[in-house]
Amino acid sequence: MNDFIFHNPAKVYFGKSQMEHLSEELLKFGKRVLLVYGGGSIKKNGLYDLIVRQAKDNEIELFELSGVEPNPRHTSANKGAEICKKENIDVILAAGGGSVIDCAKGIAAAALTDSGDVWELVSNSVFVEKALPVIAVLTNAATGSEMDAWAVISNMDTNEKMGLNGSALFPKAAFENPEYSFTLSEYQTACGVFDIFNHVIDNYYFAGEATFGLTLEMQEAVMRCVVKYAPIAMSEPRNYEARANLMWASTMALNGVLDAGTLHGAACHMLEHELSAYYDITHGHGLAIVTPRWLEYILDEKTAPAIARLGERVFDIPKTANAMDDAKKAIAALADFCFNTLKLKGTLTDLNIDDKHFKDMAKHACFGSVISGPKTLSPDDLEKIYRMCL
Amino acid sequence: MNDFIFHNPAKVYFGKSQMEHLSEELLKFGKRVLLVYGGGSIKKNGLYDLIVRQAKDNEIELFELSGVEPNPRHTSANKGAEICKKENIDVILAAGGGSVIDCAKGIAAAALTDSGDVWELVSNSVFVEKALPVIAVLTNAATGSEMDAWAVISNMDTNEKMGLNGSALFPKAAFENPEYSFTLSEYQTACGVFDIFNHVIDNYYFAGEATFGLTLEMQEAVMRCVVKYAPIAMSEPRNYEARANLMWASTMALNGVLDAGTLHGAACHMLEHELSAYYDITHGHGLAIVTPRWLEYILDEKTAPAIARLGERVFDIPKTANAMDDAKKAIAALADFCFNTLKLKGTLTDLNIDDKHFKDMAKHACFGSVISGPKTLSPDDLEKIYRMCL
Repeated sequence: MNDFIFHNPAKVYFGKSQMEHLSEELLKFGKRVLLVYGGGSIKKNGLYDLIVRQAKDNEIELFELSGVEPNPRHTSANKGAEICKKENIDVILAAGGGSVIDCAKGIAAAALTDSGDVWELVSNSVFVEKALPVIAVLTNAATGSEMDAWAVISNMDTNEKMGLNGSALFPKAAFENPEYSFTLSEYQTACGVFDIFNHVIDNYYFAGEATFGLTLEMQEAVMRCVVKYAPIAMSEPRNYEARANLMWASTMALNGVLDAGTLHGAACHMLEHELSAYYDITHGHGLAIVTPRWLEYILDEKTAPAIARLGERVFDIPKTANAMDDAKKAIAALADFCFNTLKLKGTLTDLNIDDKHFKDMAKHACFGSVISGPKTLSPDDLEKIYRMCL
Repeated sequence: MNDFIFHNPAKVYFGKSQMEHLSEELLKFGKRVLLVYGGGSIKKNGLYDLIVRQAKDNEIELFELSGVEPNPRHTSANKGAEICKKENIDVILAAGGGSVIDCAKGIAAAALTDSGDVWELVSNSVFVEKALPVIAVLTNAATGSEMDAWAVISNMDTNEKMGLNGSALFPKAAFENPEYSFTLSEYQTACGVFDIFNHVIDNYYFAGEATFGLTLEMQEAVMRCVVKYAPIAMSEPRNYEARANLMWASTMALNGVLDAGTLHGAACHMLEHELSAYYDITHGHGLAIVTPRWLEYILDEKTAPAIARLGERVFDIPKTANAMDDAKKAIAALADFCFNTLKLKGTLTDLNIDDKHFKDMAKHACFGSVISGPKTLSPDDLEKIYRMCL
């Protein structure tokens, strides 16, 4: 196992009756608030009205940036940063899923730079130590952005989707009311679910020497829960218990607890970010297509025990003496989860993606080098994995 | 499940090579440091010398309070508070196990009161929002005090052992180097192990309606790990992997993660605090004696499924159709873990404790009322449980 630092100062209010604390949290930072949201679902589920009411009751001045995209663009973040500068914003309120929260973080960071350009920070891998405070109201269980120090921003001009990281990017407070996810479609739910699942499996066991028993057990706990509650949330979208488990799983998957003592792997995320950057597909769907192929590709004598354990612990596949067989069954169970339980289309071809950009995507996914992990992957390897997804 | 707030701002440095950050963390708060420690084991394992060296190199002025007791006394905390006032201390450095850290927290809180008396805070259940900063170097996996907002202080004049809680009591930073626990005796290790285990089981499942699937799975993950690594740490005290798993389990058991969405039960802890208060026994040992009897006492048709699940998930006891039988096997497995694996003496009689004070202890454990949990326990019930421990 590796040494590690665990530090996550974000405060999470979880449940049905926590929204009363929203204005209290906002007022810690000031009265000029930029509300950031997406396509307007918060106007349908009552969240927008609640925010406006709390603002009014507390003499909070609300400014708005709406229309944040599912893969949030640097241009949207820059627009928000401009508002912050012009209107002297004290705190940013993100109301939506991970994309909205990521965009808010991008705004928060860019607003305190001279240029106001988030892409300058992203493309230079600047570690953000200075940003406006962000408060998040989560409506979709998926990215974990509600309690982590990362944002993922897309630049569609250059077909790039990249992470922005920094200690200043932890939300100061996050509100998680599972009821706000009741109105998500089956497809949105499925994509969110697989984003959560992949955050864990990308890190799982494959760290070899760096594997830490307690973290491993906790990773399995989260994956088991996701597998258990996903089909319930899909068939009963208003099932509070299921939505609550998925929402907290989203948070736990990336708040640092499941990284303790291990390596943070991200092979599938790096593969997928290229797909979203080139084709603007839904992140969780891309991950579901990529992940079983990645496992298939890295399966060998060395990785088989870890993949077999995944099958046993997460999918209840009885262990046999043959780890290679068990690992194959685990991969089949995972594919079944992605394409039958979650009902996600199973190939890139289904999403009208061909091999045209695979070479460039593979090169860029590695940042010109390799992806480390249970098996080191070169651009050649990645291209082969993309081809397995056709 | 219940609504909850998760917020834990403590920063943990975990591993072999983290101590270099100690002076950096201390200097955030100032140069006048009160070092608090216990019986001197830190002089044997090199920690004391390391602290003195870092202090010297960084012009930090070190004051000392040594001899903190295993059940830390209010008198020790008051002595520390007096030093803080007199010497204008900026930050308290606790180097030891949970008792030392608890004492340091008591000092930190008392130092900022007019009277400088920690018992005034404890006996009035004051929620501590103002305290000197505490930095902890943990040497024993047990209490979880390294990453929680609680301290337990004993008043031997009145035979009382009670908790002190408050947002200001989170350590600002905690250093966990499993190597510092290599020199613990088998008995100390066993007592620490069962303290960890009980922090989880006191909260487990028994919350009934309030049970939250993901939290349940994570509780089981931590208990499984404790059961797996305890015998290794006992037979190979210098096994880093085992010590590391136990140390991080200690932290995870009480840092809030395993409380999410559930009720924080503490029946066994309340039963045991009386034993320590009256007889000054080692906390973890008292818990090991009390816990299997508590389970036996609360076992009925309603609690059987939860206890059976504990057996299946934590002790690998195959599930049958008869939950009552399975639950009995689970309790037997737990007793076996306590008294055979951990080699702890199994009765109060073994510790020379008779029934003389049981009535008073039972009344006081409930604070004159009842203990809520899977089964509400009156003083009468508690007295019966104490008798089962003879």
